[in-house]
Amino acid sequence: MRIVLDGMGSDKFPDPEVEGAVIAAREFGDDIILTGDEARLRPLLETHLKSATDAKVEIVHAKDVVEMGDKPAFASRQKSENSMAVGLQWVKDGKADAFVTMGNTGAALTNGLFILKRIRGVKRPALTVLLPTRKGRAVLLDIGANADCKPEYLLQFGIMGSVYARKVLGIENPRVATLSNGEEEGKGNTLVKESAALLKKSKLNYIGNVESKEFFAGEAEVVVTDGFTGNIFLKTSESVASFMSDSIRENIVKSPLTTLGGLLVRPAFAAIRKQMDPTEVGGAPLLGLDGIAIVGHGRSNARAVRSAINVARIAAKEKLLDAIRAELAAQLSEAELAEAGNE
Amino acid sequence: MRIVLDGMGSDKFPDPEVEGAVIAAREFGDDIILTGDEARLRPLLETHLKSATDAKVEIVHAKDVVEMGDKPAFASRQKSENSMAVGLQWVKDGKADAFVTMGNTGAALTNGLFILKRIRGVKRPALTVLLPTRKGRAVLLDIGANADCKPEYLLQFGIMGSVYARKVLGIENPRVATLSNGEEEGKGNTLVKESAALLKKSKLNYIGNVESKEFFAGEAEVVVTDGFTGNIFLKTSESVASFMSDSIRENIVKSPLTTLGGLLVRPAFAAIRKQMDPTEVGGAPLLGLDGIAIVGHGRSNARAVRSAINVARIAAKEKLLDAIRAELAAQLSEAELAEAGNE
Repeated sequence: MRIVLDGMGSDKFPDPEVEGAVIAAREFGDDIILTGDEARLRPLLETHLKSATDAKVEIVHAKDVVEMGDKPAFASRQKSENSMAVGLQWVKDGKADAFVTMGNTGAALTNGLFILKRIRGVKRPALTVLLPTRKGRAVLLDIGANADCKPEYLLQFGIMGSVYARKVLGIENPRVATLSNGEEEGKGNTLVKESAALLKKSKLNYIGNVESKEFFAGEAEVVVTDGFTGNIFLKTSESVASFMSDSIRENIVKSPLTTLGGLLVRPAFAAIRKQMDPTEVGGAPLLGLDGIAIVGHGRSNARAVRSAINVARIAAKEKLLDAIRAELAAQLSEAELAEAGNE
Repeated sequence: MRIVLDGMGSDKFPDPEVEGAVIAAREFGDDIILTGDEARLRPLLETHLKSATDAKVEIVHAKDVVEMGDKPAFASRQKSENSMAVGLQWVKDGKADAFVTMGNTGAALTNGLFILKRIRGVKRPALTVLLPTRKGRAVLLDIGANADCKPEYLLQFGIMGSVYARKVLGIENPRVATLSNGEEEGKGNTLVKESAALLKKSKLNYIGNVESKEFFAGEAEVVVTDGFTGNIFLKTSESVASFMSDSIRENIVKSPLTTLGGLLVRPAFAAIRKQMDPTEVGGAPLLGLDGIAIVGHGRSNARAVRSAINVARIAAKEKLLDAIRAELAAQLSEAELAEAGNE
């Protein structure tokens, strides 16, 4: 398998990318292609490789870099040879099986739409994550690609998310729910109510609304929401988790006895951290693009880069795109499939 | 001071209400008026009172009860003598200074709008909470009164929330922010972008967008959002906190050493629980109603009922409504003040 990795995406690029690429190439035996400034990437790569045959990591030069402050549209048009665009082009041309970046989500989406285009019938790609629940993991989408959504988008998120749950979590008929401010039917804002009506009529295993509590209880395997709400949900989860960890740490060191206790409970905390850890969860696919594109966290370390590469490999190995194409064809009418392309 | 308390609101009514009323009456020396089914309330009250002068708690009979499954509009119209309506009428008639319920938020809002009406100029009342942050506490609104909002509502939430922060937290010129999916200007969905433009032009101390992380870091004292997003934010915070607590507990009891450690860190956890505990945080005012109305959690125990009563007392003592009236008059034009009444 060949995975192309944006070498210039993370907040601390290119160190996490180069090291992560070497780790992944060694562990998985895949070819990793790093895109970016060759003059920076090459010497760094040399320091990580133990021998000429240690890990199959290539470098493809890309002269432009998407900066954090760049507007996504600017980045994809004016910087057409940015490290994302060069990588995505490799996927488009069939020279790589999947693309991975730790860069700006907006730029990845804009570059992705420009180069890979959408799968036929898809109205909007959705940024999709797997989150831990009490019963395992659940798929949440959209977590940030589309701040404003229409009910038809949420229906499609349900279709694509169900395929993802089947392929990645191995769940044959995943339960699909709308994230809402109440479980009862009729709860929600206008978008949720209208989306619920569409989902109910669909062939999906739609179970209605879930609140955050039911999400974490694992009552659905696929939860759909607009990208604004999904982003707030995800970031609130992360923030509360670290707010609590910090508070626990501060309260523990306040007395000698609790400090001792803190040392003893350390293994328990390590287990939880691993479960909640974004570096273990890996990257988020932009489902709906006509090519596998995975976005990892900007704060990723090498380990998190390796996890994002693993998400890409699994998606490619499971032929995720073919499955999404088949499912859209099965659930949408020919008119709906043709219509999306004109939006 | 006289506080009227819905005796039939909580999930386990009327026990928490009756006990909470007695605790509050004793602690604060206020008169508490319990509304509801006198035949149920009276004997329960007798069991809690140690003497005839122990605590000043009266009972006012209300023949109807708002059930959990009742539609709010039905509850307020068909059950016009429900325990909420009777209590709100006491506030309306000037016989009590504030109203408190642990019941359904939707029914409290509908009953409140019907009986108390809105403060002149207010388009929509907002359910408002104080949440803990790293720097103290912050006001968040709306957390559930209005699932769909317009930019003008968020501007008004900013005005009312600023008054609340000044009166309750003692912050003279609170920083106001919009909850968004990114801090940078221009981030957000359409509602956030349009609200930001209005807030920027206002006399409020508007600092722009905050994400969940900045919320908990205490970067703003007032954070405005639509009731759907605010509700998701609040419930996600609660869910993650209890998800983490449960995970910590389960991981701690897995080995004898971590179990011992768990016993030693117990005081540290108690401190955090107290900080995060909804029974300590108390009730949420429906800001914008022309009368003080506080909604507590359905799962409240007596201690939480007492906290909600305390929120009501402080609002009344601080003359919150007069301050909101004055601030709306200072920040809105005469046309805007007159217009809201016609909506």
